[in-house]
Amino acid sequence: MVDGLIGAVEAGGTKFVVALADPQGAILVQERLPTLTADATMPQVVDFFRRAAAAHGTIAGIGVASFGPLDIDPASPAYGTITTTPKPGWSGASFVETLAEFGVPLKIDTDVNGAALGEWRAGAGQGCRTLAYTTVGTGIGTGVTQDGRALMGFSHYEAGHIRVPHDRTRDPFAGSCPFHGDCVEGLASGSAIAARFGRGLEAMADPAEAVALVAGYLADMAATLVLLHAPDRLIFGGGVMKAPGMLAALRAATVERLAGYIANPRLEGGLERYIVAPALGDQAGITGAILLGEQAIALRGSAA
Amino acid sequence: MVDGLIGAVEAGGTKFVVALADPQGAILVQERLPTLTADATMPQVVDFFRRAAAAHGTIAGIGVASFGPLDIDPASPAYGTITTTPKPGWSGASFVETLAEFGVPLKIDTDVNGAALGEWRAGAGQGCRTLAYTTVGTGIGTGVTQDGRALMGFSHYEAGHIRVPHDRTRDPFAGSCPFHGDCVEGLASGSAIAARFGRGLEAMADPAEAVALVAGYLADMAATLVLLHAPDRLIFGGGVMKAPGMLAALRAATVERLAGYIANPRLEGGLERYIVAPALGDQAGITGAILLGEQAIALRGSAA
Repeated sequence: MVDGLIGAVEAGGTKFVVALADPQGAILVQERLPTLTADATMPQVVDFFRRAAAAHGTIAGIGVASFGPLDIDPASPAYGTITTTPKPGWSGASFVETLAEFGVPLKIDTDVNGAALGEWRAGAGQGCRTLAYTTVGTGIGTGVTQDGRALMGFSHYEAGHIRVPHDRTRDPFAGSCPFHGDCVEGLASGSAIAARFGRGLEAMADPAEAVALVAGYLADMAATLVLLHAPDRLIFGGGVMKAPGMLAALRAATVERLAGYIANPRLEGGLERYIVAPALGDQAGITGAILLGEQAIALRGSAA
Repeated sequence: MVDGLIGAVEAGGTKFVVALADPQGAILVQERLPTLTADATMPQVVDFFRRAAAAHGTIAGIGVASFGPLDIDPASPAYGTITTTPKPGWSGASFVETLAEFGVPLKIDTDVNGAALGEWRAGAGQGCRTLAYTTVGTGIGTGVTQDGRALMGFSHYEAGHIRVPHDRTRDPFAGSCPFHGDCVEGLASGSAIAARFGRGLEAMADPAEAVALVAGYLADMAATLVLLHAPDRLIFGGGVMKAPGMLAALRAATVERLAGYIANPRLEGGLERYIVAPALGDQAGITGAILLGEQAIALRGSAA
């Protein structure tokens, strides 16, 4: 529990969610804003926090979980800045500058790390020390948290761009990633599915074969996450995971990929408790942003 | 700096190195023992520490960097035990039981995490916050450290077993891993090279083509490490990396795989400072084991 109210921003490509929470993390007020340009949306974020603070009390810190690419290195002069996004009107937008007038500690991380933290705090990742949350939507991204903190190296992870085995005889599609072609995002994201089949899984009369193909690529990604992070659980969410049979096919193919190599109770059986769907739906991101806000306040407290 | 002398064990498949260091980590005495069975070797380890303590003073803690598979979860009842190794006479061998008579805190980790810590402390990884150390020898393994501590999830990482793209037209070799066939260890380790070509790279009159093939697989592994851990530097060591041209080929192929996607000064240019050879040679493991011993002592201190 922190001392003071906690501000939170979930910045998505189509909508922003802004909230103010009490010291226990319970939401006092939450609003949804359309994502326009930074010049149009950022002042609305500021206006929300002015109004919320006037109504509920002083803000002690703010957490932000944002689309990227994003500078999340606290030691960088560009911390909290959206870098080279193709999204018009957002390159160079800075959450640090936007929120400076409140004079409170900030913690800024990626959307997928925010969702991972939210699921860890209140959803399908509760009780996990190490948790990997993957979203398979238009793109693919993974956030890895440990003991309630997002892991990073010199920057956030970019799990969607790992290469996985691609049998071009079975699947001649070259891949849709403009950088890598057939990385896992280029083979298994919603964009890749639309480019390969001319429609999404939900529009197919019998998607079983497409589901098996996509689940195979995601299973190689899941196995790689197991081998390189040894998470206590993997959450797979996003629109592509909603296809009937996708989660079951992913579990089965991941068991096959690991081939019994990792001797651990977590990986025995059908993986129903190891690879799971998210539990919080739309609230994961803002829940994680509140946790980031708490961490910002705690960090300020320990530095003082 | 810790208070008291630091014991260290590097447990390898063919030799053990045991050492006692002063509180600054400088080695006072170091010995080398052949790796026989646990019943034969473990008493020699105990005997060394008895003699070393009698000559130099009280031991305050001991660090162990060992071959595996190994239980490195401090919360596990089997912490510090070698689990299901095919090595005769070692399954179930416990460093915790072996070293119990000294009554000091222990920290036990894998050989590759030990080498990573050693290179971070005193070798090619100095100054890195996040460091990935990969050995490409009989097998392939990677240790990842952050701020001088080995990262882990429910267990240590198993990076050698990730799958990488494998073009069977170019390279019809099925792979040598008994579990996964053509995982990266099954395609690019010393064992895989010997199985595919009938000899090692060092025995080839013109190894250039084989080097290019192996470097390509290792580059996919290196790119995956970048995307999933964002290390400040990658160290690649082990016998396979000693082949002429291997390190340069690995750098070039990794640049190609990443395709400019990660905008970071570390990844600009030819990667001469990003993917590097180890600097400590044979001393990396024992250096890391001393650091583990220091951490064991510090942990005990903070818990008291």
